[in-house]
Amino acid sequence: MKYCSKCGSGNLEFKIPADDSLKRFCCEECGSIFYTNPNIIVGALCMWEDKVLLAKRNIQPRYGLWTLPAGFMENAETMREGAARETLEETKAKIELLQPYTAFSLTHISQVHFFYLANLTTLEFGPTSESQEVELFSEPNIPWNQIAFPTVTKTLEYFFQDRKRGYFEFREEDIKLF
Amino acid sequence: MKYCSKCGSGNLEFKIPADDSLKRFCCEECGSIFYTNPNIIVGALCMWEDKVLLAKRNIQPRYGLWTLPAGFMENAETMREGAARETLEETKAKIELLQPYTAFSLTHISQVHFFYLANLTTLEFGPTSESQEVELFSEPNIPWNQIAFPTVTKTLEYFFQDRKRGYFEFREEDIKLF
Repeated sequence: MKYCSKCGSGNLEFKIPADDSLKRFCCEECGSIFYTNPNIIVGALCMWEDKVLLAKRNIQPRYGLWTLPAGFMENAETMREGAARETLEETKAKIELLQPYTAFSLTHISQVHFFYLANLTTLEFGPTSESQEVELFSEPNIPWNQIAFPTVTKTLEYFFQDRKRGYFEFREEDIKLF
Repeated sequence: MKYCSKCGSGNLEFKIPADDSLKRFCCEECGSIFYTNPNIIVGALCMWEDKVLLAKRNIQPRYGLWTLPAGFMENAETMREGAARETLEETKAKIELLQPYTAFSLTHISQVHFFYLANLTTLEFGPTSESQEVELFSEPNIPWNQIAFPTVTKTLEYFFQDRKRGYFEFREEDIKLF
């Protein structure tokens, strides 16, 4: 941030405002304070019989690696709406959302990743501008060494563990890379 | 947003960028696109014996009404760290965080509210710049008609229901006011 987005001044300071404890961009001309806060990524682990839906990324980051459909939650939508929208946008799949399943705090990128369990409602899915391939995988065929994000690996691992014991539990954990 | 925060130009358009589906502020000079996304509020329902800790707000919005300690999650912290920090800042209380308990999507303000169950680790708590009073309440004394936010009311209601049946379950729901 180099200029104040309210008054256009270039007189910004990165400092701790009064009654605050963290540095923020502060406009020395108009007094505006600019906050940035973590973003929420919402996604879904979509089931069909004994298989789960993965998408091979057609965009950066992690181009060519496999992921669960997920993306940035948008203003004015619910987490569920966001998870269903991202699934549709990335895989063309329509889903019935079930329970919230995993939540991860990622401090190094200031994100929270939140995944639902879901059922595919039809077998219609396929590649999109964001996904070069979209496929159902049974457990033995999951491409574990080509998964795009650690939160996807963990969500899949929990899923197969929980399925074996017959009970799906909401999981929440922290990932601190540095 | 009136000026580009990267180049200072006032030539901004609120439009749908290429390969997107929602309007964003776009700088027609330098090509920057500015995204805004929902914020996460993290808080805690803090227990001591049969009582829960509430704080009477000393700030707007909802000045003078009672709340669970909660506030904006900050960059580079986990949801748990944020909930503990907000509790300390608003009530001076130190807590042991237990399980994630409620999550609410609030579409009208583009927020997700996420509350943990927690135990007070000591009986030290008290007023702060953000809270004019901080008190423990047993169920019959909860000031139900003076609670600051619907997500606090719902979290308290779920808590007393769940405590009666002896089992605390993670709850997730949507609040759409318009």
